Formats: sequence, structure tokens, C-alpha cells
Amino acid sequence: MISILDLEKSSRMMRAVVWDRQLRFLSNYPVPGVQPGWARIRVKTAGICRTDLELTKGYLGFSGVLGHEFIGTVESCEDIRWIGKRVAGEINVACGHCSWCLKGQGRHCPGRTTLGIDRLDGCMADYCILPVSNLIEIPAGISDDRAVFIEPLSAACEILEQLSLNGSQRIVVLGDGRLGILCAWVLSTVVSDVTLIGHHPEKLALSAWNGINTTRDGKYYSGADVVVEATGSATGLAQAMTLCRPRGIIVLKSTIAVSAAVNLSPIVIHELTVLGSRCGRFHHGLTLMEEHPDMPLESLITNRFPIEGAPEAFHQAARNSAIKILLDL
Amino acid sequence: MISILDLEKSSRMMRAVVWDRQLRFLSNYPVPGVQPGWARIRVKTAGICRTDLELTKGYLGFSGVLGHEFIGTVESCEDIRWIGKRVAGEINVACGHCSWCLKGQGRHCPGRTTLGIDRLDGCMADYCILPVSNLIEIPAGISDDRAVFIEPLSAACEILEQLSLNGSQRIVVLGDGRLGILCAWVLSTVVSDVTLIGHHPEKLALSAWNGINTTRDGKYYSGADVVVEATGSATGLAQAMTLCRPRGIIVLKSTIAVSAAVNLSPIVIHELTVLGSRCGRFHHGLTLMEEHPDMPLESLITNRFPIEGAPEAFHQAARNSAIKILLDL
Repeated sequence: MISILDLEKSSRMMRAVVWDRQLRFLSNYPVPGVQPGWARIRVKTAGICRTDLELTKGYLGFSGVLGHEFIGTVESCEDIRWIGKRVAGEINVACGHCSWCLKGQGRHCPGRTTLGIDRLDGCMADYCILPVSNLIEIPAGISDDRAVFIEPLSAACEILEQLSLNGSQRIVVLGDGRLGILCAWVLSTVVSDVTLIGHHPEKLALSAWNGINTTRDGKYYSGADVVVEATGSATGLAQAMTLCRPRGIIVLKSTIAVSAAVNLSPIVIHELTVLGSRCGRFHHGLTLMEEHPDMPLESLITNRFPIEGAPEAFHQAARNSAIKILLDL
Repeated sequence: MISILDLEKSSRMMRAVVWDRQLRFLSNYPVPGVQPGWARIRVKTAGICRTDLELTKGYLGFSGVLGHEFIGTVESCEDIRWIGKRVAGEINVACGHCSWCLKGQGRHCPGRTTLGIDRLDGCMADYCILPVSNLIEIPAGISDDRAVFIEPLSAACEILEQLSLNGSQRIVVLGDGRLGILCAWVLSTVVSDVTLIGHHPEKLALSAWNGINTTRDGKYYSGADVVVEATGSATGLAQAMTLCRPRGIIVLKSTIAVSAAVNLSPIVIHELTVLGSRCGRFHHGLTLMEEHPDMPLESLITNRFPIEGAPEAFHQAARNSAIKILLDL
């Protein structure tokens, strides 16, 4: 078995999309080596996420191969049962032995690295590596183009883990980008009164699923029990505060590089709860995908490019009209 | 009984501290009239709060008689059982019949006015008026100089109502002003590990009670389960985020007029909960005062002035060295 492991960095080269104060497509980036307990994955498709766009504005000071949303096939791994399996992978690589990891909260391990985000090369390349414990096998019934949404869909599912929703709440999701739409869809599976507020008629039209209300004009809305802020804009919190009832909950989903001047006094006056919400567990996203085969995930794919077209793909992804741009390998 | 009510605005004049884009002491402000269900209180002592200082910077656009912390004696009231009683009063005047009021949450009634803060003249005057239902009688065993702390002490108690603390949490209170010290004291009655971080050695020395740790240097501290932000500064939230553990809770106590540029991404990355916390119920503050007669509330009185000295009193209250400045009537 050890023969299929290359413990030293491989001398093979691969294609990769690299951020190092500029975005470059490289055809001669070294294929990553595999440590015991890790797997090397042949990437088939990777998604461009808003976080990737933020990284290219300086968020977290990342440099290396970008990308944390992917679907691929295990190529190399100590445990041969994984080889050839179609997988996605959780993006946080935890130490495994700190108090957070022992509680099953490796996503908050202080020593963690994060695929394509923090000190770990990402998946916009022919190959990426992850611990085997991060992998999840994708059932045959789920297409690549659905499965590639498992990371953002699981991030949306995280809200269901954090809040106890009884179905009677009035929920507003702010932002008709990809994450906002997925949050609205996920919330609509447990709550009937979900309103998505956005600026883009074509995106709002796409998001109409499962009885979700959509509107471009949030100014007549007020008194939501829960407002999910997924605008990706530093000013989203201020708008969320105007939509939320006293003692309501604002879920913050956007991670953004810039700071904005916010008057926080409405949080105190109305005793609001602002809840940060990040990644979710992939098995929740996968379960939701299986339970809702009619959830039109594929309709969110605006365009796709071969990996060589990554600079143009990033350019398109930054446009307001884009929802999900994929890179094929 | 109606004879002791003056339903029309009284023609009597009184002393009052008025904010109307400038702070003025007036000796000829009309004594407020009393409606049925309301009481007129002869104010004995009023406290200057940070919120008063914020109002004089434009917070909430208030104009009128300032002041919401007081101790006084009921002078006029339909229900004669109240007359002559020594009272304090809850500051939010709710409509009494909306859904918030019916839930006992009149503090969030959308139609509420607030004593000396929002469309209701305050208590820095010979007389103020409040609904009888807002009054709380002060037991004889509690001195005026302790009882005048009931409003801020109840605001600190609000944290105990909002959080379920089991005693094992590590808590940091940021800010050694009056509210920060009171929050630390209140929290120390249920949790043993409470650290107060401030900038002023003399205030930190005053705050040492009930085993509270005090320090001027928070930079070596991290991983608090709960951080109470009571700095009164727009930058307090950023510091609170550095002190809080992943999935920890930041309680926001400061209401401030200005906005500050805040990078909110740590809230998302570490899935923090930011909880706004405002006024508390007075019976909680009173109960705590009675249960802890050794809580050195009086030691927080930095200085006191006759009401005619209000401009100088506000000047002193704005100094960093001041904790509580009182006005006597």
C-alpha cells in the first residue's frame, strides 16, 4: 500500500489557479504529496465562491492554490478502499486532538488550516489533498453538477443546526447571491414564511422554489423573527437591523475583507442577537440534497470554464449577474 | 382624590436640567401635570449616566429634561396609597396593549416613550412623572445613595436573564466605567471566574469585590466564554472579538451615538453570538441589592452637585476618572 503513497512532494506537475497578490493560471505547479491519513484527489469540477473573490482582495492574506468547492475522485490514499471513489471534502483540516476537535468541533480548531483559504493549497488544480476523515462519498444518484454545491449547501444548513426553528417563524434572507438563495431554500424546508430580498430580478426569478417569497423592495418589510444576512456587503448588517423585530436574530453569513462603519446601538436597544454562521457538516448538505431532489441546484450554474480560463471565470464571477461559475478539469 | 390631580399642565415652575442642542439649568420649567394612572414624583437625587452624555452628543435626537436614574417620593397620584412612598421608576413607558406589552415585554413596545431619553421629560428636575405601574417602592433598609443605582444595576442584571450561566463560565467584562463595574459585580454573584479589563487603576481598585480579577492589560487574555462589552466606545466590539472563544458570546451593553468601522468577519469565522442587552426589570436589581448588602455601590459615587451645578456635573461626568456623579434636588 505504501507504494501508492508519495511521501515526498511529487515531482509531477499539474495545472493550478494560484493567488499570490495576482491571479495566475499555471501549468507547472507541483502535484501535492500524500501523507499517511491523507488522500490525493483528482479534481473534476471546482466552484468559484465569494470567499475566493474576497481572498483576491486580500482577505486573510492567503497565497497559494485557490478553491474549496470541488467534486473529484480519490487517486492516492493509504486506505485503498477510498481509491476511485467520487468524493467531496470538508474544508477545515483540524489538529484532531485539541479540546475543540475532541468535542467534534474541528471547524473551530485553533490550529486548523483550510483548503484554499488558510495555509493549505486549494482545489482549483488537477489535484488537491485532504485528510481521509474530511472526505464524503457522493452517492451515484447525485450528479457532479449537484454535488459541487455540497459545501455552500452545508454552510446554509449550519443555520438549522444553530437555531431551533419550529416552523412558525417569519424569516428574511438578505441577498440574492448564491449563498442567499441556498439559505432561503434550506430554510424553506422547515419554515413556510421565507422572504428573499435582493436586487436582481433574474436571480430572484431563479430562486423561486418551495413557496419562497421574493422581492426587490425590502423597505416595507419589518418585524422578521430571523434575518439572514448574506449580501456579501459590509453594509448588510445595517439593513438587517431594520428588518428584524425586537429580540429577533440576525444570522451573519457573509465573510468580507472590508470594514464598514456600523451604528451598533439598534442591537442594544432592540436586544437583537447577531449570530455568526460559517461552514456546515457535509452530511447535512448531502442529506438535504437527497431529500429534495427537486431543489434546482443546477439552475444556479451561470457558466463554466476549463481551468485554463480561470482569469475570465473569476472576472465573470465578480459580476453581479453571476450566481455560480464552475471550473472543469 | 381628583383634587390632588392636576390634569392640565401645572402653572407651577420648577428647576430642571434641559437639553435642547445645549445643556441648560432652568429655574422656571413648568411642573408636569399628572394624568390618571400616572404619578408625579418629587425627585431627591438623580444620577448622570453615560446615555445622558451620549444624548448631549446627539444620540436619538432627544430634547427636553434629561435624566432617567432617580430616587424620589410620590407627591401626586390618583391612588393615594402611593403618596409619600419612596420610589424609583422603570424608564420605559409602554402602551400597555400591544403584543409586546401583553407578553410583559413593554421595554420593547414599539410605541414606548422613555424617561429622559425619548419623548418624555426626565428626572433631572424637581418633579418627574411616570405611570404608577412603573414605580417600585424602595424598602427602608436601602439608603437613597444605594437605591439610586437600581436602574443601572437592573440593566446589569438583564444579562442574567438573557444568558443561562451555570457558574463554570469564564467571563470578561470590558470597560471599567460604572456599567462595566456593575456588570462584573452582578456576574460575580453567579460565576466565580470574572475578569474586569479597564484602563484606570483607581477604578479597577474600586471594582475589586467578590473575587473579581482586574487587569489593565487584556492582551494576554483569550478564550472567554462570555465577553461583556461595556466600554462605551465604538471600538469595544473589535476588542471583544479578540477575547472571546469560538462560539462564545459577546454581550453588547454600550449604546453609543457614533458609528465605527468594524470588521465583522471574526463573528462569522468563529461563529460568535453578539447579544444586545439593555434595560432590566427593577425588581431584579432591588433583589440583588437586598441579597448583597456588602456590594459597595456607594463607593462608585465620585461626586455630587446641587442641581444648579448640573453643567459642571456633566463636565465632570464626561471625564474618564468619573464613575457616578449625582445631582441633589
